[in-house]
Amino acid sequence: MKLLSYMHEGQAGWGVLDDRGQVMDGMALTDGKYPSLKSLLAAGDATQALRRAGSGGPRISMEGLHLLPVIPDPGKILCVGLNYEDHRRETNRAPTGEPTLFLRVASSQIGHGQAIVVPRASRQVDYEGEIAIVIGRSGRHIPPARAWDHIAGYAPYNDVSVRDWQQHTTQWTPGKNFDSTGAFGPWMTTRDEIADGAELSLTTRLNGQVMQHATTAQLIFDIPRLVHYASSFTTLEPGDVIVTGTPGGVGFKRNPPVFLSAGDVVEVEIAGVSCLSNTVRDEEPTAPA
Amino acid sequence: MKLLSYMHEGQAGWGVLDDRGQVMDGMALTDGKYPSLKSLLAAGDATQALRRAGSGGPRISMEGLHLLPVIPDPGKILCVGLNYEDHRRETNRAPTGEPTLFLRVASSQIGHGQAIVVPRASRQVDYEGEIAIVIGRSGRHIPPARAWDHIAGYAPYNDVSVRDWQQHTTQWTPGKNFDSTGAFGPWMTTRDEIADGAELSLTTRLNGQVMQHATTAQLIFDIPRLVHYASSFTTLEPGDVIVTGTPGGVGFKRNPPVFLSAGDVVEVEIAGVSCLSNTVRDEEPTAPA
Repeated sequence: MKLLSYMHEGQAGWGVLDDRGQVMDGMALTDGKYPSLKSLLAAGDATQALRRAGSGGPRISMEGLHLLPVIPDPGKILCVGLNYEDHRRETNRAPTGEPTLFLRVASSQIGHGQAIVVPRASRQVDYEGEIAIVIGRSGRHIPPARAWDHIAGYAPYNDVSVRDWQQHTTQWTPGKNFDSTGAFGPWMTTRDEIADGAELSLTTRLNGQVMQHATTAQLIFDIPRLVHYASSFTTLEPGDVIVTGTPGGVGFKRNPPVFLSAGDVVEVEIAGVSCLSNTVRDEEPTAPA
Repeated sequence: MKLLSYMHEGQAGWGVLDDRGQVMDGMALTDGKYPSLKSLLAAGDATQALRRAGSGGPRISMEGLHLLPVIPDPGKILCVGLNYEDHRRETNRAPTGEPTLFLRVASSQIGHGQAIVVPRASRQVDYEGEIAIVIGRSGRHIPPARAWDHIAGYAPYNDVSVRDWQQHTTQWTPGKNFDSTGAFGPWMTTRDEIADGAELSLTTRLNGQVMQHATTAQLIFDIPRLVHYASSFTTLEPGDVIVTGTPGGVGFKRNPPVFLSAGDVVEVEIAGVSCLSNTVRDEEPTAPA
């Protein structure tokens, strides 16, 4: 099942994408019970509930929708750094015994088709194609073997990073949290469609050219380990997002470096799941607040 | 004006504390228009709106309330590291040209009177008394001179840190985000009661003994600079929190080190604003999820 969030006729909504590229309004399907995808996930088994709801009712064409981040309002977005060996090596970072985690704020996110914004403050804007997992069931101290039961689904994520601001201090926060940099979509594919632990293939393309490619077999800390580690300190909640890390091939470690600029198109594809595409534009030179 | 959030008879609410230690229900005062303190702040000039509402209506005794974090649901909590010179020196960190920022998730927070939890995973739990500012007006690219106009008020914050988990990797995220570690309260004092730029005096006590003491005159990056820097990359929104950094005297840099353990009482006081007090307890040995 493919689940997504959108704006339609000025209203935020969520829905189910059918095989013909039409979207069923999730609020209508569930008699208005769930105002957001996060609230649906929090209610328990989302896919079963939606299957029972059937497939009647009006359809919206995918083309008419302004997509939002798959989860527009996650309680937390935990991102993993340096989780593929080739990327760890290209950044000259020492191996670590535990995953390197940083946080993204929800307001830094955009959906599929929205523009990544190159800020006035920097020209060093870089792609990072990643696989995001969406939490479906809350838990603390989740053993690795039970991690899959807490996952609702998977989606592509572009953890766009502003490199000079990422290195202002030891903490990467500013470079990872510019407005309109965390691209998340177009939809999440629910866990029932992907065997637990199946090898997922991830590709990032810039203007059609492959820049990054890897599979989940190459993750240093695999998905069960990430869920276990995160839940050792924080209660994972439905709608929370774990962005699992980017492979080698990022722009700023190339020679010469490659940075995003207005007009570029960046795609992040998980084979068999979906392909996230975003154009790039410059921040508008508006007056200060 | 003193604004706070609480649970009362099983319902989340917010209110205004009067001079006699009684709380006026904010929902009743505003005819149910604002379900949370964040929604009140988002509506514009909160203090004026509340003054117009007057002071009639029923009062709740402060003693009967279970206080929540001042803002239970901030869109973002930006914390500043190493922002007092004596703390920077005790941690052997190099000076930086920009503030060191990390993020806390809202679900890691507790209110005044709730227990700080020492997790099963660590014994290295440390206090960090700080001054939190609450954003009242949204903005991006806020010049330092206009920063005050974006501040709704001030409150004590205890940025309790799990030191070994803070150092698992270069990024401090896990050690700064254990459940029940970010203490925020008891209330915020609104900006109209404190002259912009007035020197605020901050004191942390452990079981009655002063462990940290400083004033905002000693901040490396002052409040206008922090608001300016943060708003250079992210749109600050009403209810967002900036936790401005801790002075020297933290427990893990003492000889011998001092860590929190069950039964301890930690207080963080901003003179003339309020005093946050929390006891410490151990995590319960419940079964894993």
